[in-house]
Amino acid sequence: MHFSQRGAHVAVLDNGSKRAWERELGVEPLVAIRSLDERVHIWQEISGRSIELFEGDLTDADFVHATLESFRPDTIVHYGEQPSAPYSMIDVRHATFTQANNVVGTLNLLFAMRDLTPDSHLVKLGTMGEYGTPDIDIEEGYLTVDHNGRSHTFLYPKTPGSMYHLSKVHDSHNMHFACRVWGLRATDLNQGVVYGLETEETVLDPRLVTSFHYDEVFGTALNRFCVQAVAGEPITVYGGGGQTRGYLNIRDTLACVALAVDNPAERGKMRVFNQFTETFTVLDLAERVREAAAQLGIAATVVHAENPRFEAEEHYYNPKHSGLVDLGLEPHLLSQELIDTMLQRIVDHRARIRPGSLVMNILWTPQPATGPTAGS
Amino acid sequence: MHFSQRGAHVAVLDNGSKRAWERELGVEPLVAIRSLDERVHIWQEISGRSIELFEGDLTDADFVHATLESFRPDTIVHYGEQPSAPYSMIDVRHATFTQANNVVGTLNLLFAMRDLTPDSHLVKLGTMGEYGTPDIDIEEGYLTVDHNGRSHTFLYPKTPGSMYHLSKVHDSHNMHFACRVWGLRATDLNQGVVYGLETEETVLDPRLVTSFHYDEVFGTALNRFCVQAVAGEPITVYGGGGQTRGYLNIRDTLACVALAVDNPAERGKMRVFNQFTETFTVLDLAERVREAAAQLGIAATVVHAENPRFEAEEHYYNPKHSGLVDLGLEPHLLSQELIDTMLQRIVDHRARIRPGSLVMNILWTPQPATGPTAGS
Repeated sequence: MHFSQRGAHVAVLDNGSKRAWERELGVEPLVAIRSLDERVHIWQEISGRSIELFEGDLTDADFVHATLESFRPDTIVHYGEQPSAPYSMIDVRHATFTQANNVVGTLNLLFAMRDLTPDSHLVKLGTMGEYGTPDIDIEEGYLTVDHNGRSHTFLYPKTPGSMYHLSKVHDSHNMHFACRVWGLRATDLNQGVVYGLETEETVLDPRLVTSFHYDEVFGTALNRFCVQAVAGEPITVYGGGGQTRGYLNIRDTLACVALAVDNPAERGKMRVFNQFTETFTVLDLAERVREAAAQLGIAATVVHAENPRFEAEEHYYNPKHSGLVDLGLEPHLLSQELIDTMLQRIVDHRARIRPGSLVMNILWTPQPATGPTAGS
Repeated sequence: MHFSQRGAHVAVLDNGSKRAWERELGVEPLVAIRSLDERVHIWQEISGRSIELFEGDLTDADFVHATLESFRPDTIVHYGEQPSAPYSMIDVRHATFTQANNVVGTLNLLFAMRDLTPDSHLVKLGTMGEYGTPDIDIEEGYLTVDHNGRSHTFLYPKTPGSMYHLSKVHDSHNMHFACRVWGLRATDLNQGVVYGLETEETVLDPRLVTSFHYDEVFGTALNRFCVQAVAGEPITVYGGGGQTRGYLNIRDTLACVALAVDNPAERGKMRVFNQFTETFTVLDLAERVREAAAQLGIAATVVHAENPRFEAEEHYYNPKHSGLVDLGLEPHLLSQELIDTMLQRIVDHRARIRPGSLVMNILWTPQPATGPTAGS
């Protein structure tokens, strides 16, 4: 909708798999989402602009090839992956599905681009979670290493924290190859944790609402904390809560993707942006939600739950993120007002909250831990 | 056979896929290989030792789980992947097959180890080709980086040169995760290019001969050059021939795997060995084969063919490889005598050489090259 509104001729590829995963796990977005078909019609009704629909699976090479042959895009914005770390950690089947699905879909795209639209620009959703939490500064995608009197610039080495995050690291290596060897152009957006409910387009009509997840599998920290507060459940911080991550408002995600699209990478280059606007500890976010809720008369508590993940809870974290700012990004920083607005919108839909999906206990290490300590 | 001879209780997992890929491409080993079943029986006849056989596919999680549940190995030596860079570059289907097959098979093993045999040691075949040819020294698996006054030790960053090599990089990241998070133990053997025809066990009976490929897809440089010389075909060096790689004798590969098995990695650690004994340029190898052939009265010529691959033809290359030497490896270095022996054995089987499979023209960049220059 964002690009269509800007006047672009837009097509959407989808196979509805996110909805299938929701059904599988018994979770659903806070506000019901209409079918893609309906949303396309509503968008046309409101904006007068049409969006083309290609229904199929990115892991089907013929479908991807046929779609690119028909549509011939200048730009491909690729969000079509299994996006949840907990989902990928449920068991071996969910892990291998996540990696095969994400890696094969992206490879099919890269080959179709090579053969049909080699000048098109791939804007691919990665994640800040690819990096992990190294003890040195996280640069934007590349790291120049001086070693034994010589120097080389590498893809920044990654230490990801789940089977899902690993799939994105694999994608980055595959895209880098396609740029180096085939001369394609790509932008890898290492996105932080997204929060927020609305974009400039979704507010045009309530039927265009976007997916807002608060469950353990597809929900992200701030969103989940707000829903826990409204539901009268404790705000659950995993472990000590010192885990620091990059965050951004959903409106800024669209601004970032638009900046990447408007300023394409050079042929032969995989450009990398670290796409977030601020860093917070998990505990800091929880406290902010608790305070904002209190001002609205909602008494929430913050509890430290056993961490189902394997991650360092106290660590150095200094990721650079100047690339998108240099292109003109003007961040919407996290304010009390924004949390208030989120809480109020959630109150409007509180009848739909399923408390059972707030904490689902998907464990990174399902057997008694036998390994070394996280962060060691 | 090597481990069985040493007294270990050995099981083999196989689904016969290498033979299927050979049939698909119309290539075959220089000497016909008997079925796995026959080889197991012949081995029992000769050595008095039995090898258990599990027929199935590593990408079948149930098969892998059931096998580990039944056999409960102390050590898992994992060679069960699609092993050819050219095969992975044929087209999108071969690329996605290679990555999904290799990545999913290894993940199924890691999960089964986690759930059933968390103390077992995985010895996994990687490749020196994972590293590419960076401008700094290649360390054994890890690189300590000093950056902005701080320091961190990373998995050595990789710049692999094919869809196959990428699959091994993905495996390394997945194994590293399994060691870090689940406390498994693994050794990643970044093997160089293997040459040679015989091991101590295959020479015990001609029916136990091992697979010797000379075709463009499954054959490696020295083997292929020897067969080209015997077949009266030109020895084809890709491009300038300055490409430098690590090589080792097939007997040393077994010695390396045995050293890794006898000295397992610690729990929670992925240990990495760079498994080769010498480096050569491709042109140097070709010249050595030409000279050895001349002494046997075979007049061979060396030609520079257009390079089907995308790789730097002149580059810095200084990979460390002390880990296995420290454990006691005594290399069989490449000698004129060894090349003589190889050439003579190939002469014995020259009637089976299929000249058409020596050069198959699988191109890394099938369309007119539009990208940057290799090595830039």
